[in-house]
Amino acid sequence: MLVVMKAQATPEEIQAVCEHIEQLGFRPHPLPGAQRTAIGITGNQGEVDRGNLEALPGVAEVIRVSKAYKLASRDVKEEDTIIRFTGSDAAIGGRELAVVAGPCSIESREQAFAIAEQVAAAGAQFFRGGAFKPRTSPYAFQGLGLDALKIMSEIREKFGLRIITEALDTESLEAVAEWADVIQIGARNMQNFSLLKKAGRLRKPVLVKRGLSATLEEFLMAAEYVMSEGNYEVILCERGVRTFADHTRNTLDLSIIPAVKRVSHLPILVDPSHGTGRRDSVLPMARAAVAAGADGVMVEVHNHPEVALSDGPQSIYPNQFSEMMGEIEHIAPVVLRRLPRGIRVDVAAG
Amino acid sequence: MLVVMKAQATPEEIQAVCEHIEQLGFRPHPLPGAQRTAIGITGNQGEVDRGNLEALPGVAEVIRVSKAYKLASRDVKEEDTIIRFTGSDAAIGGRELAVVAGPCSIESREQAFAIAEQVAAAGAQFFRGGAFKPRTSPYAFQGLGLDALKIMSEIREKFGLRIITEALDTESLEAVAEWADVIQIGARNMQNFSLLKKAGRLRKPVLVKRGLSATLEEFLMAAEYVMSEGNYEVILCERGVRTFADHTRNTLDLSIIPAVKRVSHLPILVDPSHGTGRRDSVLPMARAAVAAGADGVMVEVHNHPEVALSDGPQSIYPNQFSEMMGEIEHIAPVVLRRLPRGIRVDVAAG
Amino acid sequence: MLVVMKAQATPEEIQAVCEHIEQLGFRPHPLPGAQRTAIGITGNQGEVDRGNLEALPGVAEVIRVSKAYKLASRDVKEEDTIIRFTGSDAAIGGRELAVVAGPCSIESREQAFAIAEQVAAAGAQFFRGGAFKPRTSPYAFQGLGLDALKIMSEIREKFGLRIITEALDTESLEAVAEWADVIQIGARNMQNFSLLKKAGRLRKPVLVKRGLSATLEEFLMAAEYVMSEGNYEVILCERGVRTFADHTRNTLDLSIIPAVKRVSHLPILVDPSHGTGRRDSVLPMARAAVAAGADGVMVEVHNHPEVALSDGPQSIYPNQFSEMMGEIEHIAPVVLRRLPRGIRVDVAAG
Amino acid sequence: MLVVMKAQATPEEIQAVCEHIEQLGFRPHPLPGAQRTAIGITGNQGEVDRGNLEALPGVAEVIRVSKAYKLASRDVKEEDTIIRFTGSDAAIGGRELAVVAGPCSIESREQAFAIAEQVAAAGAQFFRGGAFKPRTSPYAFQGLGLDALKIMSEIREKFGLRIITEALDTESLEAVAEWADVIQIGARNMQNFSLLKKAGRLRKPVLVKRGLSATLEEFLMAAEYVMSEGNYEVILCERGVRTFADHTRNTLDLSIIPAVKRVSHLPILVDPSHGTGRRDSVLPMARAAVAAGADGVMVEVHNHPEVALSDGPQSIYPNQFSEMMGEIEHIAPVVLRRLPRGIRVDVAAG
Repeated sequence: MLVVMKAQATPEEIQAVCEHIEQLGFRPHPLPGAQRTAIGITGNQGEVDRGNLEALPGVAEVIRVSKAYKLASRDVKEEDTIIRFTGSDAAIGGRELAVVAGPCSIESREQAFAIAEQVAAAGAQFFRGGAFKPRTSPYAFQGLGLDALKIMSEIREKFGLRIITEALDTESLEAVAEWADVIQIGARNMQNFSLLKKAGRLRKPVLVKRGLSATLEEFLMAAEYVMSEGNYEVILCERGVRTFADHTRNTLDLSIIPAVKRVSHLPILVDPSHGTGRRDSVLPMARAAVAAGADGVMVEVHNHPEVALSDGPQSIYPNQFSEMMGEIEHIAPVVLRRLPRGIRVDVAAG
Repeated sequence: MLVVMKAQATPEEIQAVCEHIEQLGFRPHPLPGAQRTAIGITGNQGEVDRGNLEALPGVAEVIRVSKAYKLASRDVKEEDTIIRFTGSDAAIGGRELAVVAGPCSIESREQAFAIAEQVAAAGAQFFRGGAFKPRTSPYAFQGLGLDALKIMSEIREKFGLRIITEALDTESLEAVAEWADVIQIGARNMQNFSLLKKAGRLRKPVLVKRGLSATLEEFLMAAEYVMSEGNYEVILCERGVRTFADHTRNTLDLSIIPAVKRVSHLPILVDPSHGTGRRDSVLPMARAAVAAGADGVMVEVHNHPEVALSDGPQSIYPNQFSEMMGEIEHIAPVVLRRLPRGIRVDVAAG
Repeated sequence: MLVVMKAQATPEEIQAVCEHIEQLGFRPHPLPGAQRTAIGITGNQGEVDRGNLEALPGVAEVIRVSKAYKLASRDVKEEDTIIRFTGSDAAIGGRELAVVAGPCSIESREQAFAIAEQVAAAGAQFFRGGAFKPRTSPYAFQGLGLDALKIMSEIREKFGLRIITEALDTESLEAVAEWADVIQIGARNMQNFSLLKKAGRLRKPVLVKRGLSATLEEFLMAAEYVMSEGNYEVILCERGVRTFADHTRNTLDLSIIPAVKRVSHLPILVDPSHGTGRRDSVLPMARAAVAAGADGVMVEVHNHPEVALSDGPQSIYPNQFSEMMGEIEHIAPVVLRRLPRGIRVDVAAG
Repeated sequence: MLVVMKAQATPEEIQAVCEHIEQLGFRPHPLPGAQRTAIGITGNQGEVDRGNLEALPGVAEVIRVSKAYKLASRDVKEEDTIIRFTGSDAAIGGRELAVVAGPCSIESREQAFAIAEQVAAAGAQFFRGGAFKPRTSPYAFQGLGLDALKIMSEIREKFGLRIITEALDTESLEAVAEWADVIQIGARNMQNFSLLKKAGRLRKPVLVKRGLSATLEEFLMAAEYVMSEGNYEVILCERGVRTFADHTRNTLDLSIIPAVKRVSHLPILVDPSHGTGRRDSVLPMARAAVAAGADGVMVEVHNHPEVALSDGPQSIYPNQFSEMMGEIEHIAPVVLRRLPRGIRVDVAAG
């Protein structure tokens, strides 16, 4: 259920509607829009009485939302969601493409700083690096943990990059929320509903990676889990799904970009590194992602991928990252986007 | 790495080898077999020095295990693992088929007792029922939680059924470990490595359901996560994978049964209810599972599936459950199995 | 559209209805049932005028068939189709399980006769052997062609086995129709509509193997293509579909058996050899197929699989075939089936 | 096996090597390159004696090709294959992007001409239109057949567009080869090896669409079937594969573009119309295809998609086609491509 407020509704009227919803035993989610505020209603105690709500001052209309996802739906919020970061001009979801780069894992202070310096110079605004690693084998490198978070925190100070890193469980969630700017929920945890709800109770943006066999609806329901707890700053990320095809590690499903844009206001990034698992496919698919309308890309960059502790074969070199930035800068205007910083890389003229 | 002890090795010698392994910074996993004990070695600090170990008293040989899964591998333990329950003749993995039955969710004491009575009468030894439900939607029924656990605990007392129920996170894991006999890790959490490790620190059997897009190796690595923490009582459960096929909710992959038997000593059950999502396919696929060599089946039974709060369309009626028991009793001898209690259901003669 | 005739309708009345349908520009398909005859109507020139038909003598009612497949549907023919062979008691689709066995390819007269003798002795009624082979590589062995057909024709004479072999195109279709008893359309040709239509114009039973990514509806539509040309003797065959799973060559989807039985009257066999691609999985999956309700199995048997020109790793040995026959004979009564010849293999009692 | 000739080898020396290969019972495939000619050797009678060949005049070296596909491999021909059309500057595979547009089916002369006029004006060089339609249902519209071919032949005369249309079987193959410029082999026939071989004996370019569950190797082996018969003008076309994802009709696998470019010299087009099945996804995925490095795109355009006899929901309007041309013209330089005719469509500046 969705309460659409009149354009001229006052903050007090909005507040009064929210309180009324709470008294009915439901949860109100006020979502301000450019023209007017909408208030999503969630809770599983049954149907809300529409008549009572329509009679309240400032209410324009009450709409039933038939989709399984409600707060993530464009029916509830028509304008694109833009995630902003205080003290920075970095943003995810607006006119400017978001570029996230960094190593799979933080391996040492030296490695992380070397990569951060290069990706910052090439125009990235976000730095990614694994602190807590979800590894298929219990005997594989599991990440540096808190030490990695502290290194990334220094990187934010030094290079002005915003930090995105994965949380695996309650313990790491708290640490990530304290030290990073965006909490990543990995593909394997996309239906770890307990973790999603806990992330929803925090007030840090949450990046949700698509599960290896998640449908569009399940992907949006994962976002909905976060949002249902009151955290509306959710970023989606396509990273490849599992199919019979064996020429890439996963099959990057770029057609989910226009599909998400049709039904949801949430921004969506694309990770061509995990999506293909092959260095020589990252640039082509990063270009394709931007051309298809993604809000940005997330790529693994390593200065010495041949000795990386994880995901070496899919990490690109810093000079390839610069090349990629030049390429997506050229493509961006076709989808009414641009890179935030003016990068000057020559692209061969037609 | 695997240390195979001599047949006549003494407990003291085994103990000494374990201590030596710990001093080297690794973790020993003594796994007693019918003939002799093997000691698996895990840890990710690099390669163990084989020479030192081979010189210890009681050691027959030291073998390198090349598979990614070690403790779950038949290379490490040749005999089938049988999970037994104190104070009960119920078992999973041996000559007798394990039959797990019950509703998707515990909805009330009345509902649970009614179903339990009927499945116990028909020969089930294990009762399943959801207390904590992983639901795709945050607005769907999430289970009765602790109340459900208490109801199932009463069912154990009254009907002698052993209880299997799902844990979703740290909180529910502790509760399930306290009240139930087997901790279920659901398909969506099969790669929730943090949860697997926590379950590995408990001393209750753990049933791991196959993820919707899990390969055989990933499935066994999930078991390995539990075992690497010292809990060797792991039961696998096939419950369908996600494919393009649309005539069932998932595609039940019965060929994983002989594949698991080839490489692992762990028992494997089959859940044809989730595996097909259709009541009229449950009996055929339960029969097929037993014929393919499964160690048992896990089915959803409901006395009033048309009003079930979850999974009604795939729950069978109690009389269908009785019919199923008769059918699998007939098939069992072909795979050198039997049902633990003599059920007398006539099967039309050939 | 379907015209259901009255139980006491005369052959002349049926004939008159068929002629009337033809005059309307459609094609009548009279399908005799146990109680009464139904006449399917196909053609793509639009809607038939129901009123005219209902007024004809002998017509009970006219029913609109809403499914995409019509002649293959149970709506049009309620009783199971049984394919019989003149001069033989072999049948596919009735009370008796059909067992098809033989090598992947006919390699020589000696090889074929040796295998045929053994499978006949163990109770097979149908012999399979590739004469025209669809190979992924143009440089691989393509089959002995007409010579293979002649060898199999001799096998029919000598051992009384009915012959099933694949046709690839117009040329091989004519040859197969002349020399064999059942024309096989392979998985890769399941949507070779031109070939299906040509097979539909012949009067030999057609076995259609499921395509590697065929849905249930597409599978039945392939059968419908054959039937729409007037050949109603179609046998379906599940042989595995393509998924991400890598522990078998294909994923054998046994749940399609109850799904087919729900909506179609056509018989369905299962091929666990192609369905798994592994010798050690053939017996478990053959047993499972029978337990799930298949009308029979089709397996590759080779006397020297280690030197087979194709598919050696998935061919079972003759003694394994005998073992399989004993196993499915034991399981058969549960699904109200039996093997046609009394095989006496002891199965360990429960 | 591959014979690499010296740069200065004479035509007579090349001819002599070919004749020698034939005498050995194999088939020579001379493939001229920019620097020198290579001669592929195929045939399945076993191994060629390398020593004999290396001794022939003009031979630089003899190389064993280990891949299953040989003539399609870059090992055999390093430079990209460019398909040219006499009497036209249209080409597939070179610096200029190939754009193929037209309706799913030719429905009438008026419809076809109206669409052809618009796509020609917007810059397409190739016209596509179904004459023989592979339909899942035997009762669906099967195409106008020869009449459609004649209409398209007139379109070539009038608008200078080159014609691409599908052949389904021996009969339609001959007709298509006579009337069209490129013979299309559809996805459902990608492993109809008999049809591929017949197309290989013609001397018209062949466009092979990827099968719904074809791996990269199988896709290239389909091309190899055509090439093994001496027709080296093969164009690949990605059109989506079948997965669990349900937000599009198929999952368009753009990552196959860099994968093909790595191992093969053949050009590859992308069909975002079949690849997504949704009008609103065609432009995003056409842009993405070009950005990923495709040699061109193939799209369905209809002037009245709402009344199209087939595939209406995925056909774009002519004005969307013009928009697409402007977009890909802008993207092309990033991948060192251009559109052949100067289209002037303004793209919003960054």
